[in-house]
Amino acid sequence: MADPAVVRFSHRSEDCLRAGPGTPAGRYLRQFWQPVYHSVDLAAGRAVTIRIMSQDFALYRGQSGAAHLVDATCPHRGTRLSSGRIEGEALRCFYHGWKFGADGQCLEQPAEENAFCQKVSIRAYPVREYLGLIFAFLGNSTPPEFQIHPEFEQFDGMVEIDSYSRECNYFQNLENALDMSHIGFVHGDNVAIFKGIGLGRALDAEESAWGVTYGFTRPDGQRRVQQFGMPNIFYLTALPTDPEIGWQESLFWWVPIDDTNHMQFSVHRVPAQGDVARRLHQRRQARRSEIEIAHQALAKDVLEGRASMREVDKKKVDLVRLQDDVAQVGQGLIADREGERLGRADVGVIAIRRLWARELAAFMEGRPTKKWKRDASIVPRAWGLAGNPARIGGQGTDAAKVAEVIDVRPHVEIAVQLKALHAPIA
Amino acid sequence: MADPAVVRFSHRSEDCLRAGPGTPAGRYLRQFWQPVYHSVDLAAGRAVTIRIMSQDFALYRGQSGAAHLVDATCPHRGTRLSSGRIEGEALRCFYHGWKFGADGQCLEQPAEENAFCQKVSIRAYPVREYLGLIFAFLGNSTPPEFQIHPEFEQFDGMVEIDSYSRECNYFQNLENALDMSHIGFVHGDNVAIFKGIGLGRALDAEESAWGVTYGFTRPDGQRRVQQFGMPNIFYLTALPTDPEIGWQESLFWWVPIDDTNHMQFSVHRVPAQGDVARRLHQRRQARRSEIEIAHQALAKDVLEGRASMREVDKKKVDLVRLQDDVAQVGQGLIADREGERLGRADVGVIAIRRLWARELAAFMEGRPTKKWKRDASIVPRAWGLAGNPARIGGQGTDAAKVAEVIDVRPHVEIAVQLKALHAPIA
Amino acid sequence: MADPAVVRFSHRSEDCLRAGPGTPAGRYLRQFWQPVYHSVDLAAGRAVTIRIMSQDFALYRGQSGAAHLVDATCPHRGTRLSSGRIEGEALRCFYHGWKFGADGQCLEQPAEENAFCQKVSIRAYPVREYLGLIFAFLGNSTPPEFQIHPEFEQFDGMVEIDSYSRECNYFQNLENALDMSHIGFVHGDNVAIFKGIGLGRALDAEESAWGVTYGFTRPDGQRRVQQFGMPNIFYLTALPTDPEIGWQESLFWWVPIDDTNHMQFSVHRVPAQGDVARRLHQRRQARRSEIEIAHQALAKDVLEGRASMREVDKKKVDLVRLQDDVAQVGQGLIADREGERLGRADVGVIAIRRLWARELAAFMEGRPTKKWKRDASIVPRAWGLAGNPARIGGQGTDAAKVAEVIDVRPHVEIAVQLKALHAPIA
Repeated sequence: MADPAVVRFSHRSEDCLRAGPGTPAGRYLRQFWQPVYHSVDLAAGRAVTIRIMSQDFALYRGQSGAAHLVDATCPHRGTRLSSGRIEGEALRCFYHGWKFGADGQCLEQPAEENAFCQKVSIRAYPVREYLGLIFAFLGNSTPPEFQIHPEFEQFDGMVEIDSYSRECNYFQNLENALDMSHIGFVHGDNVAIFKGIGLGRALDAEESAWGVTYGFTRPDGQRRVQQFGMPNIFYLTALPTDPEIGWQESLFWWVPIDDTNHMQFSVHRVPAQGDVARRLHQRRQARRSEIEIAHQALAKDVLEGRASMREVDKKKVDLVRLQDDVAQVGQGLIADREGERLGRADVGVIAIRRLWARELAAFMEGRPTKKWKRDASIVPRAWGLAGNPARIGGQGTDAAKVAEVIDVRPHVEIAVQLKALHAPIA
Repeated sequence: MADPAVVRFSHRSEDCLRAGPGTPAGRYLRQFWQPVYHSVDLAAGRAVTIRIMSQDFALYRGQSGAAHLVDATCPHRGTRLSSGRIEGEALRCFYHGWKFGADGQCLEQPAEENAFCQKVSIRAYPVREYLGLIFAFLGNSTPPEFQIHPEFEQFDGMVEIDSYSRECNYFQNLENALDMSHIGFVHGDNVAIFKGIGLGRALDAEESAWGVTYGFTRPDGQRRVQQFGMPNIFYLTALPTDPEIGWQESLFWWVPIDDTNHMQFSVHRVPAQGDVARRLHQRRQARRSEIEIAHQALAKDVLEGRASMREVDKKKVDLVRLQDDVAQVGQGLIADREGERLGRADVGVIAIRRLWARELAAFMEGRPTKKWKRDASIVPRAWGLAGNPARIGGQGTDAAKVAEVIDVRPHVEIAVQLKALHAPIA
Repeated sequence: MADPAVVRFSHRSEDCLRAGPGTPAGRYLRQFWQPVYHSVDLAAGRAVTIRIMSQDFALYRGQSGAAHLVDATCPHRGTRLSSGRIEGEALRCFYHGWKFGADGQCLEQPAEENAFCQKVSIRAYPVREYLGLIFAFLGNSTPPEFQIHPEFEQFDGMVEIDSYSRECNYFQNLENALDMSHIGFVHGDNVAIFKGIGLGRALDAEESAWGVTYGFTRPDGQRRVQQFGMPNIFYLTALPTDPEIGWQESLFWWVPIDDTNHMQFSVHRVPAQGDVARRLHQRRQARRSEIEIAHQALAKDVLEGRASMREVDKKKVDLVRLQDDVAQVGQGLIADREGERLGRADVGVIAIRRLWARELAAFMEGRPTKKWKRDASIVPRAWGLAGNPARIGGQGTDAAKVAEVIDVRPHVEIAVQLKALHAPIA
């Protein structure tokens, strides 16, 4: 890709930011399966109204344990279906008892002697639970094949769930990922060895079959490689967050709640077993309880002059999240890219914007879009702590086992993200 | 009236919802006396700014004890008159001491040697206190005759005031009233005997001299009848709320505060005397203090996934109000009726919409509107608890006595509704 | 000037109220140095984002102790510069470490081997600290000469800082100043001797070289004179606020934060020395700690019917501020002047509006505007407490000394005004 000293984001790129129904990005994102909730947050027999890409849905778990996603409101008198009761796999409206099957078909209208159920239905959306996340297909077309990530399924270890919400446009987070040069500054105080990562010339971004392969080459020739999957996925190897584990692979999805709020759904692959796994689990559970301060709120305090990064109590808040909040939310709820000055170090950001612009243009004009596909060769890489390149996926793991999914989100984080996901009355 | 399986609300019906000055519904509603406040909430010598139908007013009680309603702001420099002081029946502005009589005439301009009071006045609105409520006429024309309800005035017993505010459009509540079939579902957990009420074919709605007579006929031929009075009044008989009293007659008025908030002013006729009255009064006062949770806030928690109806502490909240909040506020602040599917059981809703559409159309085109009038024959009826139809109005009461007005609103309810009624600075 | 019984504010006068970039008033106000913050609130090495006239800036104090004001966001990726770190007099962005000198020039781009710093800069705004306030020039032209007020600099005594924020348009406060007749009413409960001040005929307003000379003549011929300086300054003598001091001179600046919030930056000249100064200082510090209630919040409670002026605890709140809040915020966030009825007593308000209208019209049409200048003859005057006219500026003070600046703002006031000044993320 080009190497511009200064690249301006084309006017059309605004189109990437708004994801409501009918918007270009909203329609494009709805062509892909998207995670919308955490399996662990939805008990059997419980329903909630969630907002995803500025659209409201009723999400519930039937008594069989299966999750279902349907339109948010009853077509009879418009009240929220999530306040209704679950009967088997069906959902009965709180207001007049109209009952809808998991396929959206109206099954009962108790106050109507001559019921007209067969003429009434709501939309039901395909749902699949995978790696502790509830995925849904929200588009109007036939759902594409569900993309699996076998490395995260079949191994002897744990998949840790560590998602968070952030109060800004999702694209600010997405761009932040393909921007290794922020690490030395934003997270510089945190992990000393980040320093030096991400010098402009050493960065490269190439289109792949899945999206963008983003790399950094050290002066000694060693490379670190991360994989961006269109339209909003990231597959990376990151520094260990515990002394007993090595570099850790992760999958991220950035999903708009609305145009100024988003979720990062994240799962980490931790190939630890036995005593190591037990000790790690204990430390993680201790840590999630220790965190009392919502990074989202503290970041606002910092940005609005009520707190200083120098006085943060690192025990009580997730520092990395806080730092990214400050950098990303500090750009405003929806960053104004007009007049932005990009450099060589922004090659990843530029690559993503170009792919998105190209695909959105084709999509909006009805031309064919690229069929993105992750194959087994599209994996992240990093040099080891002791200098040896390593792909953890293959090391000492037993592919016959199924990894256990563990929630490591701090309790305060869960409260904040559920508040963000649960659509406010308006 | 017709019996449509599916009736769509005509586009024009949006006109029923907005009640600000100059809007069709706002102008139509202003042709009628409306309750705007509770007598007990306004002490002598006190003034408040209230918002009614998206318009602000200064409401005050003179030293004589009479209530007065005038424009909210001083014509001199525009500050709120309610911060001023009351002198006799006049109101003196806090800012420069301009003094206005209860008729709105400017009486003094202390800083002006050559006062021009005679050229300055504000609008004063006719006010009348009745059944514990302060009514006002906010229209531009001559006020119509004040409608009285003798059944609630002259009897040996108590008139209980039990009003509440709700954070949604007033028309959602109005429609909910002529919708008996919601009772079995929305309030089903509450009072077992509600079950079975409101099957579609058994419901009927006929235009009356006052509005709509809404009925339900049981298989055994017994009828329950409720009366809707145009444009926003309800006269009904409801199940007893105390073991020592029978079915209880009530009057409701749904009054917009603005387009997304409204009051239900409600009075209940309780023909209890002597020891029964004393015991009832004690129970009511105990109950209003027991209620600590605002149903409005808890309903939002339910609708936004932070609480569940199954875990509600019925001691600490008014359950019926909460249930109606969930059903009505769950439709959104202003329900979107586009695409709604009405059935036979919605005959009451359809009847109200038709009357409103017809009258609004005539009103807006300058054609004569119907002169609604409640006569003594327009009363609600219900079968008795023991099976015998009963009209409480006539039972064991002494028409020479004047009923005492008792406030039974929970303390938390009063705080919430005063906050809703008192216009925020904007 | 004319003496109209009723004067309507011309339609164009709306132009005085909006002060965002590009608006007529915003452009006009930016031709003048404006105070934007308090020196004492900005420690060395600290940066904050502030909002002034609906525009955001990064304000910071370099390690030398000098204050600097630059654009709020980094031109690279748009994050707030105030979250960055201060290095000497430069500010380094938190996100990718771009470093900017106090003159706005980009000095480093750490991730760019071929840096293009010389092509990148942000705007830096001239700053000057004076009388405990940080002044800035936000216009596009050459800054005018900085206006000094020697009476407040060189004397043996203290300059007390007593600024506050108010949640309404700045022009409401500005007009309130040239309106002596409000004092007897708004502050009437406070200081008995205010009664009788400000009868209409006794008031006069004349254009001066600086703005408007506003006077009041007592029946005995004694005069009180206050000076308004264009576009938004006031120089007055006010009643003593402590028994040991005489009439006290003050300077006020009304500066928009945005269109519905403003600061009154205020300094008071207190020519007290020795034991009197020590005792006064002690009383002032005791008083600022005693004040627990934010007048801004209590005023809203009063205006919205949750509190009454009659029940205010004068120990815990600044009563004069509260009274002015009620009068000014009671006009609404931006007062609607349509239909206003002005009288003879509003001669000061009329004078200010006329000057503003004339100057704004000339400014917008590109014609020369008047060069306002305060000379030594433009000073306030008042009769003494014992009847003798006095100008405190000359009494028993030593012009060789430099007055000490003392912060007397209540702690709750500082918290409220910093929240108002520090731009929220949007």
